[in-house]
Amino acid sequence: MPDTPVSAPKLKAFVVEALEKVGISSEDAQTTAEILVTTDMRGTRTHGVRLLKWYVDQIQQGGVNRKARMEIVRSGPTWALVDGQAALGEVTAYKSMKLAMAKAKENFIGVVGVRNSNHFGAAGYYANMCLEQDMIGFAMTNADPTMSVPGAAARLFGTNPLAYAFPADNEEKGLTFDAATSVVAGVKVHQAAREGRRIPEGWIIDRHGRPTSDPTDLEKGGAHLPVGGHKGYGLAFMIEVLTGALTGSGVMDEVFSYVQYPERSCNSGHFFMAIDVGTFIPVAEFKARLDAMAQKIRNSPKVEGVKRIYVPGEIEAEEQEKGRVRGVLLDETTLSDLKQVADALLIDWPE
Amino acid sequence: MPDTPVSAPKLKAFVVEALEKVGISSEDAQTTAEILVTTDMRGTRTHGVRLLKWYVDQIQQGGVNRKARMEIVRSGPTWALVDGQAALGEVTAYKSMKLAMAKAKENFIGVVGVRNSNHFGAAGYYANMCLEQDMIGFAMTNADPTMSVPGAAARLFGTNPLAYAFPADNEEKGLTFDAATSVVAGVKVHQAAREGRRIPEGWIIDRHGRPTSDPTDLEKGGAHLPVGGHKGYGLAFMIEVLTGALTGSGVMDEVFSYVQYPERSCNSGHFFMAIDVGTFIPVAEFKARLDAMAQKIRNSPKVEGVKRIYVPGEIEAEEQEKGRVRGVLLDETTLSDLKQVADALLIDWPE
Repeated sequence: MPDTPVSAPKLKAFVVEALEKVGISSEDAQTTAEILVTTDMRGTRTHGVRLLKWYVDQIQQGGVNRKARMEIVRSGPTWALVDGQAALGEVTAYKSMKLAMAKAKENFIGVVGVRNSNHFGAAGYYANMCLEQDMIGFAMTNADPTMSVPGAAARLFGTNPLAYAFPADNEEKGLTFDAATSVVAGVKVHQAAREGRRIPEGWIIDRHGRPTSDPTDLEKGGAHLPVGGHKGYGLAFMIEVLTGALTGSGVMDEVFSYVQYPERSCNSGHFFMAIDVGTFIPVAEFKARLDAMAQKIRNSPKVEGVKRIYVPGEIEAEEQEKGRVRGVLLDETTLSDLKQVADALLIDWPE
Repeated sequence: MPDTPVSAPKLKAFVVEALEKVGISSEDAQTTAEILVTTDMRGTRTHGVRLLKWYVDQIQQGGVNRKARMEIVRSGPTWALVDGQAALGEVTAYKSMKLAMAKAKENFIGVVGVRNSNHFGAAGYYANMCLEQDMIGFAMTNADPTMSVPGAAARLFGTNPLAYAFPADNEEKGLTFDAATSVVAGVKVHQAAREGRRIPEGWIIDRHGRPTSDPTDLEKGGAHLPVGGHKGYGLAFMIEVLTGALTGSGVMDEVFSYVQYPERSCNSGHFFMAIDVGTFIPVAEFKARLDAMAQKIRNSPKVEGVKRIYVPGEIEAEEQEKGRVRGVLLDETTLSDLKQVADALLIDWPE
């Protein structure tokens, strides 16, 4: 079945209505809907409205605290430690990046660490928030462990993503990056399992730590492998420390899956950093250099058969342009899931 | 021929004497010698005294400015933009990280960007400097382009390394990381070429952008591949922006090799960041959590045949311990190079 296009405003309104129906405030529902739908529009469909079903479940089962008020535990001019109070991760992350940006405006750099949070969707959304103020943004989170490290036959870390955003002039949406530290995203493995396909060796190990091309080995206790072996391991560890150990949030097996344990908070941690470019170097100069870098990359000699060389975030920016015209594309499973949410909550699906 | 052990103090004294002989101040020679020899002791022999020969050449040919005085172009309480004035990279990097640490002491975080610098040795040395003050350290540099990006048959970026250091109590030297964003370090490819061995496909491409297992293709205009394809590309790009575009230093093909162009400054940029742990969370709590993470990793179930699971930086810390007893190990090529330096400069090699 082909993907179904849905109007972005209607999809947002639906997400808001669903979240409000399970007790989320109108403001928090709006924030979450905006983030999920924007993420879909950028083509990162693994982290878009597909998640709504799980969020609703976690809210209903008590893992998300509907009445949470984000608490600033301690702070200084350049930093803050935030307790998410188990609110929806998107809500806490959005406010935390805003806080980091306000600090960066005054002091060049702002760092906000978050403890006691939930799944926050796509890290890239928060990094990208910095672009409109000509700031550099970084966003990271830890997650429930599904990834091994070299030598271990165990799930030790989440697929801990790193996202950044650099402002640039001709690149309307900046030069951006958002990637997990695993070889591939979990969704790719689950999809192969659903469709009965094999996967290349090197993506995952089975529960004994053996290489495997059977995607069902992941759900049977196997684990993701970090990208580039000890290099991805080192990056996942860095993210775990900044998001978890430094914030006092959960680390490693102290972080829980919102799918498996909807009755409890994920206890995950996030780390946000904003850097005010103009404090350091004239913004126009910085942007011109990034544009020149992008051009140099695009215009370089290509491998035979390759038509284009992409710069970081270009594919997502193009998707977002297309999305403005045609709306959000939903795959069969997501469409069906959303309709089930509508039925269960007695609200209308925007046909 | 087996490696030759040399006493670390004698080796340092030799490096100091050689650098002084070509006009480097005693203080700068001491700093550089300390960094190179420590790097060798930690087992990162690609970035230790092996480099002296090239540094001496670059100093003699004019690429290194012997009389450079590092200039702080602009600065604020949390940041500084430094012009290295083409001094030896180690000297500028050492002072710049000290500056970042002083700022972090006062304001939680210190960021120092460096322009107009030279090769600085191992990034890890500077990140590790933060440990003795219970700070988190980050160090990055760009380099002359030897690495491609997905789709390009060209050298676009250096193998831009990222290093970090996290303080921990039982891990005497902290938990540390220092890795290039390429699949493998250039030295591994050059070594295979010297020894007439093939290399696995996926390490490099030839000058037409084709996969190759012939290591000599690298020096014939081929290129490194970034680790994990677009993921390593994204990281190398991030480092290029922070070290080069943000600092006003060279980026991409504006950065030069000290081996190929000893008569000119590398024009490379660096980026250092120090974070004061104790401002954010009690240091003892942070360290205890890192120790617990390290234990959890070590004690997890192992892949068949694996005896130990290493935590980040553990191999290097153990090498350093061994080095304290047995001295620095020099391979045949490095030993011969150093003796040639001694002969050329009319100084004694410490036999």
